[in-house]
This record gives sequence, structure tokens and C-alpha cells, in this order.
Amino acid sequence: MSAARQLFTYDGNFRMHRAGHLQSPTMAYETWGELNEAKDNAVLIFGGLSPSAHAASSEGDMSPGWWEDMIGSGLPIDTDKYFVICVNSLGSCFGSTGPASIDPDTGEQYRLTFPILTLEDIADAAYLVVLHLGIACLHTVIGCSMGGMSGLAFCVRHPAAVSRFVSISSATRALPFSIAVRSLQREMIRSDPKWLNGEYDLDDPPITGQRLARKLGMMTYRSAEEWAQRFGRERATDHAQSEDQFVAEFSVESYLENHAKKFSGAFDPNCYLYLSHASDLFDLAEYGGSLAAGFKRLQLDRAMVVGVRTDILFPVEQQRELADGISSVCPDTRLVELDCIRGHDSFLVDMDAFRPVICEFFESCCEQ
Amino acid sequence: MSAARQLFTYDGNFRMHRAGHLQSPTMAYETWGELNEAKDNAVLIFGGLSPSAHAASSEGDMSPGWWEDMIGSGLPIDTDKYFVICVNSLGSCFGSTGPASIDPDTGEQYRLTFPILTLEDIADAAYLVVLHLGIACLHTVIGCSMGGMSGLAFCVRHPAAVSRFVSISSATRALPFSIAVRSLQREMIRSDPKWLNGEYDLDDPPITGQRLARKLGMMTYRSAEEWAQRFGRERATDHAQSEDQFVAEFSVESYLENHAKKFSGAFDPNCYLYLSHASDLFDLAEYGGSLAAGFKRLQLDRAMVVGVRTDILFPVEQQRELADGISSVCPDTRLVELDCIRGHDSFLVDMDAFRPVICEFFESCCEQ
Repeated sequence: MSAARQLFTYDGNFRMHRAGHLQSPTMAYETWGELNEAKDNAVLIFGGLSPSAHAASSEGDMSPGWWEDMIGSGLPIDTDKYFVICVNSLGSCFGSTGPASIDPDTGEQYRLTFPILTLEDIADAAYLVVLHLGIACLHTVIGCSMGGMSGLAFCVRHPAAVSRFVSISSATRALPFSIAVRSLQREMIRSDPKWLNGEYDLDDPPITGQRLARKLGMMTYRSAEEWAQRFGRERATDHAQSEDQFVAEFSVESYLENHAKKFSGAFDPNCYLYLSHASDLFDLAEYGGSLAAGFKRLQLDRAMVVGVRTDILFPVEQQRELADGISSVCPDTRLVELDCIRGHDSFLVDMDAFRPVICEFFESCCEQ
Repeated sequence: MSAARQLFTYDGNFRMHRAGHLQSPTMAYETWGELNEAKDNAVLIFGGLSPSAHAASSEGDMSPGWWEDMIGSGLPIDTDKYFVICVNSLGSCFGSTGPASIDPDTGEQYRLTFPILTLEDIADAAYLVVLHLGIACLHTVIGCSMGGMSGLAFCVRHPAAVSRFVSISSATRALPFSIAVRSLQREMIRSDPKWLNGEYDLDDPPITGQRLARKLGMMTYRSAEEWAQRFGRERATDHAQSEDQFVAEFSVESYLENHAKKFSGAFDPNCYLYLSHASDLFDLAEYGGSLAAGFKRLQLDRAMVVGVRTDILFPVEQQRELADGISSVCPDTRLVELDCIRGHDSFLVDMDAFRPVICEFFESCCEQ
């Protein structure tokens, strides 16, 4: 465990949104910068499905974080001005309580006895961390991908605890294509004979299913346009040696294989299943029976919705819907459609496009 | 076997495009209408990866074919005027020789000893059927999806044997996104422990891998737009009874499950692997070193390239590239971009859009 990671254990029963509860769950989080005296400079970041709370390096952990170029001194989310918090999602496996954690009632891993996880639970768990840090109202909540929906859940459920909201490549709820992708990813893992209905051997997990799921993920995180430019019909360098006609022949195949190898084994399969399912379940329309009613619960001073033209997981139409809805209750809402070709993952890899957008959001906040 | 299916066994060694040969391969085909005396009214149809030669019903087999609404008396491909031929692709498992056939040298199924299959082999095998039927020059070759590339291979390799070409939702070659999709589908089957490196028990084939592959296929055959309209966030009717949180909850999930169940078991897994791989391999640029050189080998009088705006497997940009290339050697080339929302499969399911386009092509041929 890195020295930067802080743990907060909630002393009580955490009631889960759908059903059940967790006894004294722990939330792992990291912070950067200093909370000012007025306690009004805190920025809370919700990440996607897979990352830990390590969004950026710090003295306690010099390894690069998942949003390294975005958070730091003089960077778009400027830690000289803001106190930045990132919480590992409840249900994940990087310090926060999830299916891979020990159930205090049994002394065994929760695995599939973990209650159904929702993005509401992730939002509420992060809210407990915010309270624990003595913050009554966050300057801004930023959420990327799944984290955009967790952030939206936070803003709807704790409207007095947040003034501004930035949604990046996210939505009000998942559409059937994204649900189908994630459902198939889960089925790939569950179909691996090593999954054993969630009771897999920790030293021999369902790597094959995880590898397949990660490859499908990569296909929806990037774009056909990027790959056409990047790989074309280029052949993999090591193909000629193979006698097996089904071994990766094209560069795009070996690219996917390398990505899949890196990811598999690094993420607990049951945690993945729970977080993936939670992404399907969230629906802003459950707050009052319609999207319009859901938006009415927001109490934001300012918002920004950023999306990417080539994103097939959270397409630009969904960015427009989200921006339109928020602007109906928060006139100071900006929609930014970026022309990046790297698809859904652009916010992680196309910093030249994203940096100025996030920069401008915070700079114009200072001017207010 | 249906009475409509005819078999032609080539008496000789069929040399495969990449390497190896087949001893006396058989091609299964069906025909509709009558060949005229001049033998200049024959239309050859190349289907996609999965269908048999049964493109339409006939007296010999009244069951509906895979292009039932397109081929017949008074229909767009009018069997009162044209002699229509559809050949089951070499390498498939519906009568034509493929990995599931018996190797005469061993008396056992070929399985993975079948030589590497290419679309060139499929085109050449169909050419043998055309010669067998006594046809020197086809009125038109029509190819859909993978069959569009097989048809293009036919036109490039046997330019004197075809006057007109219609390509539907196809391309000059596969781009990395499509390669990635098919590569992952193959990996799903090969990862199924029941695949046994191609030596699966015929009574217990790798159904799980096939089911996963079919679901991924459906995601690329249809469109996110269609599913958003059709399913939204509708719940599956039988979900409430299930206690397993990972059982299909949304309608889109049970739709995919039903499609996958129908397909798995109906198609030989090794044949699927070979045909899928052949789709990746084809590249018009291999004819002379560039696409431009490949196009120069065509000797067409007329061509039409039809594509669909929502197709993610063979996107419209590829239709434009194909039409531009053909028109450089065949001025009477028409590009039709259809606004269907049902994606790649539109040619099979959106007859209202496709019927008039095919109709017009043949009607204007008569006027010439």
C-alpha cells in the first residue's frame, strides 16, 4: 500500500441503495493540495470503472496516477489552489470495501454475498469521506466515464454538498449498446470455468475471461478511426514465426493482446462484475420518475459537460441530453464536444484536447 | 438435404490461393429461374459469412431463404428474367467442402488440417460452378458483406467472366476495428475448453464460445441507434423471477441471448473460424501492390456500391473508397448511401430501403 493512500472506516452500518448493508466499510482515498480555512476549495474526482484513488503522484507515492497530467501544481486542476480528493469507488479492490474484502460477519471474502452495488452507493461512500474531511460543500465534483454517473448521483443525492459539476464522457444513464457490451464482458468472465460462480482460486483466477472482456472493452474505449490511422493493415512483427494461423497476425491483434495481459490479474473479477453491473443500473430518471424530475433535484451554480465525437460507449447525443437537462436548472452550463479521434478514452490519452477545457473551467471560476 | 440444393464435385486438385490444395472439392449451390439461350442472363450471389446457398425458396425447398424478399418472380432480382445462382462458400458447412468435411486422404474430418482459406478460394470455387453451368460471362455478380469481398475477388480474378458488379455493405479490405471484432470472436471459440484445438466432440461442441461470439457479432451487425429506439432501458419480462443479479435484466440482454441460442450449434465452429479469418485476410491491394492497381484489373461495364450510414463493420467511408476506385475504371458506377438505422444487417432486414435500390439497378440494365 502506498503511503499516499488514506483509509477512512465508517463506524456504523452503511445502508446500500438497493438492499442490504455493509458493516463499517472502509474507503480508500488520496488528496493533493491543502484545504483552505473557508473549506471551500475542495474538488472531488470520481474515476471510471477500473482506476484506484491514485489519480496523480505526490510525495507519498511518486508513481504516475491515472490523471497525472491533469492534477498538480500549475496543472488544470491546480493543487496550489484546490484541495483535490479522489476516492476509490466502493465495490472496487484498491483499498475500499468490495466483493474482494473480508466480510467481518464471516471472516471470509464477500465475493457474491456482497450486496448489489449501485453508483448511488459509490456516491454515498464518497460523501462520507467528504464529511470526514470536514467539508460541507465541495467547490466542484468532476466525474469521468462511469465516474460521471457516480458524480451525477452525488449531485442529485447531496445537492447542498456541491456547487459545480463537470461530467466527462458520461451520461444520465446507459443505453442498450453500452449495456450489451458490459453484459457480454460479464458473461465472458462468468463463462470461464475458473470463475467457479465467484469462488475462484485467488492464485488461479478466470484470466481467460478477463482477457476477453478487456479486449472488448478496448474496442469500445477507442475508435475505429484511430485504429485505421494507427494500424491500418500492418502485420504484427512476431507473426511470421508462428505456424498457428489463428495467432495474432495483424498489429491491432497484438496491441489488444498486450493491453489485455496488462489488465488481467490486476483487477479482482468479482469487483469488476459488480462495478460493471452498477454502470448498467444507474438511471437519473429514477429520481422522480423522469429525467426532467431528476435534473430538478440539482442545486448547481455552474456545470460543464464534455464529450468526444468518436465515443461509442457514451456518444455525443448523450452529452447533449445531459447538458440540456442540467442547463434547465443551472443556466451556467457549458457543453463541449471535442473532435478527438481516440474515442471514449480520450480524457485519459488526449491531454492536448482536454487540458485547455478543464483549465478554462477552473480559470473562469476564479473570475466569478 | 433439401431437393433444391445441387452439388458439383470438381474432378481434380483445387489449388488453394495461399498454399495447399483440396482433392475433388464439392460445391453446393441453388439456382432460380432459367438460363436463356444466349446464356447472358445469369446473376451470381455471394452471401455473408453464415448463410447457406438457400437464398430464396423454390419448388424444391419451400422454406424461406436468407434473401427471400429479394429473389423471385417479380421481385428485385427477378427470376422471370434472370437465372440466379447462389453458391455456399467453400469452407462453409452447408454442402460445400470445408473443415467439417471428410478429407478423402484420411477418411476423417479435415478440421484444422484444412488449408488456410481465403476469399479468393471462395471466388474460384464459385467460378468452377459457373463454368460447370456453361456460363462464359455473368450478367451480374452481387455480394453482400463478406460476400462483397468474395465478389470483388471474383471480378478481379476472372474479369472476363462478369459484366456488372453490385457490392452491398462490403469493402476493398477489412480495417482494424473489424479485424479486432473477428479476432476476438475467434478467440472466444478457441478459449472454450470444449474447442479442444479443433478436435471437439461433434455432440458437445464449444457452444459457450460460439454463443459469446454470436453476441459480439450482433453488436456489430446492428446499430446503437436502433437498439436505443427499440429497447431503451426496458427490462426483460422474465427477470423478476431470477435471484441471480447477473442474469439478463434488460431487454437488450435477452434479445442477444435468444439470437445467440438460435445460431450456436447450427454452424460448425471450425468452419466459422476459417471463414472469419478469410474475411480478415482479403486485400484488393494484393493485386498489383496498391488498391489503384487492384481496381485496374476490373473489366466491368457497370457497378453499384451500396452502404448504410449506421454500419460499424463496413462503414460508409469504405463504401466511398470502393465506389471511387471502381469508378476510376468503370465510369458507370453508382454509390448509394442508405440512411437505415439497422446497421450492417440492413440488407437482410430493411427491405423497404434495399428493394428499390436493387430494383432500379436491374431495371436500368434492361433499358441499356
